[in-house]
Amino acid sequence: MSQEFDLIDVYFKPLSQPLGLGDLGIGDDGAVLTVPAHNQLVVVTDTLVAGVHFAEFASGYDIGWKSLAVNLSDLAAMGAKAGFYSLALTLPHVDQAWLSEFALGLKALAHNHNIPLIGGDTTKGPLTITVTAQGWVPNGQAVLRSGAQAGDLVCVTGVLGEGALGLKLALQTLNKTLLAALSQSEQTAALAALNRPQPQLALGANLHGLASAAIDVSDGLLADFGHILNASSKAQNSALEASINLDQLPISSAMQTYIAHTNDWSLVLSGGDDYQLCLSVPPQHWDEITAKAQALGVRLTVIGKINQATKTTQTIKAEDAQSTQSAKITMLKDQKPYELTDKKTGFSHF
Amino acid sequence: MSQEFDLIDVYFKPLSQPLGLGDLGIGDDGAVLTVPAHNQLVVVTDTLVAGVHFAEFASGYDIGWKSLAVNLSDLAAMGAKAGFYSLALTLPHVDQAWLSEFALGLKALAHNHNIPLIGGDTTKGPLTITVTAQGWVPNGQAVLRSGAQAGDLVCVTGVLGEGALGLKLALQTLNKTLLAALSQSEQTAALAALNRPQPQLALGANLHGLASAAIDVSDGLLADFGHILNASSKAQNSALEASINLDQLPISSAMQTYIAHTNDWSLVLSGGDDYQLCLSVPPQHWDEITAKAQALGVRLTVIGKINQATKTTQTIKAEDAQSTQSAKITMLKDQKPYELTDKKTGFSHF
Repeated sequence: MSQEFDLIDVYFKPLSQPLGLGDLGIGDDGAVLTVPAHNQLVVVTDTLVAGVHFAEFASGYDIGWKSLAVNLSDLAAMGAKAGFYSLALTLPHVDQAWLSEFALGLKALAHNHNIPLIGGDTTKGPLTITVTAQGWVPNGQAVLRSGAQAGDLVCVTGVLGEGALGLKLALQTLNKTLLAALSQSEQTAALAALNRPQPQLALGANLHGLASAAIDVSDGLLADFGHILNASSKAQNSALEASINLDQLPISSAMQTYIAHTNDWSLVLSGGDDYQLCLSVPPQHWDEITAKAQALGVRLTVIGKINQATKTTQTIKAEDAQSTQSAKITMLKDQKPYELTDKKTGFSHF
Repeated sequence: MSQEFDLIDVYFKPLSQPLGLGDLGIGDDGAVLTVPAHNQLVVVTDTLVAGVHFAEFASGYDIGWKSLAVNLSDLAAMGAKAGFYSLALTLPHVDQAWLSEFALGLKALAHNHNIPLIGGDTTKGPLTITVTAQGWVPNGQAVLRSGAQAGDLVCVTGVLGEGALGLKLALQTLNKTLLAALSQSEQTAALAALNRPQPQLALGANLHGLASAAIDVSDGLLADFGHILNASSKAQNSALEASINLDQLPISSAMQTYIAHTNDWSLVLSGGDDYQLCLSVPPQHWDEITAKAQALGVRLTVIGKINQATKTTQTIKAEDAQSTQSAKITMLKDQKPYELTDKKTGFSHF
């Protein structure tokens, strides 16, 4: 027992600031927090499992960072401001060096967004990290998946596929020719995208009234954008479809090289681990949201358009979160329908 | 991927009611909830790991129940009303029968307390369940560990050690003579205490203004009450100690039989898995809190008293959550100091 409390005191209590007046963090049966008046609470939870969501050789620092980042990315996709987070850490044994690194990774990202760790649980078992992060939105202003309309632009932040490229680098599965074609800084950037994704909280907090729907791209663009299409179709009881232009997808120079060598678009379309935002934006709001993104230094790219469903032939079925429906997404290249040979559309959790 | 969403649809969406108007549960990047005005949020998190917190042979129903119960018990100890909960479920594989049972166990307890499941994450890996439960208290009315004063009565709800006795039954480590001395209904009650603890939420929500401090007994009475003593001593910058009367500890008839055979008080004092509340109550509030407990059908027993620290010789050191201090707890039997041979004071997490 004392060892659990020592761990908390040494590694996690230092992460427990800042807290509001009258609030209480680590050290009692529960934390006590104040949600700003006239705001709703937004709650997200994501688990990372060793050997499933990160490689056994991943550094403690990167695991700490990422376990929080994937949650903050979900808050961003809800249009929420980050508030605080709790940590459930299951460890096979107490490894002081690893814990120190893990806490540093958490701390670095939490510090960037000024959010305290408010509690959690440490248990013995196979390495598993569950973070529950919380934030808030002014009442009724959460940005959902279900608000997209025909005519909306499809947009994404940052670049796509970079985390998946980083994973190929980390796992050393790129062939030698390709590896030699990537500069050191390109490789570093791809690994950083994999290990230390930057949640788009700043833009997220500005989405209300500008984006009609949002999701974070964690399972791959097609799968996640498919959730917007399906949730919105269902909410409006009217089938939506979309076209996405391969030529417009924002990708890094490293990814351009990768695709030139392989003609493999799967990392970009379904690689997962992007932690970018995918938005639907009514055209009349495009100028304003672009200005906000520019002011925040966030790359925002239009990649396609949402339409009322018609009978089409060239579609990719993106599986749906909310029902057994499939979203109709037409891929375009050089303004013509483009058939992808790899129909894989998202990360499979099982 | 589709399999994850199927799981959620089939097993967990049915647990997502009731929600407030304008709130949103399962199905987006995050849940959106309303905390009542003039209330603070209370957040608790507990993880159960297969083979550590429950036996591999435990039923899915019991694991589901317990994973929520241990969290609701923490909310009760904060004086909070239960609000909602999220579930991070890591599973080695999809076992429909197990999942169905697990969801039923969760549902049964959640239904008793009328709280919805608002989201979570399902991942592949070694069986691990993290629940984050949330509730609220009127602003400034959380009941902390740190408010006990010299002169306060030490009280506990229910009976102690019953979960630990249940564990001995489940693991079949009781000798045959003892086993034969326990009736079937006594054995059933002990197993129920282990597998389906009843969080003391009803009394918990009535503690403010009556109990000066509260904790839930999850790691054993001495360890957990020790946290109250130490946190309160620290808060008042004045050392507190306590006496606890073995004769007054509330135990079942089965536990009486067990102690008569073994003279082993360790299940009662440090067995863990009680999920009862341990309270400090100023004497002037005793009548009122007793009346509330009676009205709720909750057994509440005075087991000792808190005093200003003096130089004593007969003490048990209960390790401390908040510092390296040790709490001074004198055990009394027949009104005389009683030395326990087993100095074990709490569950060791590592």
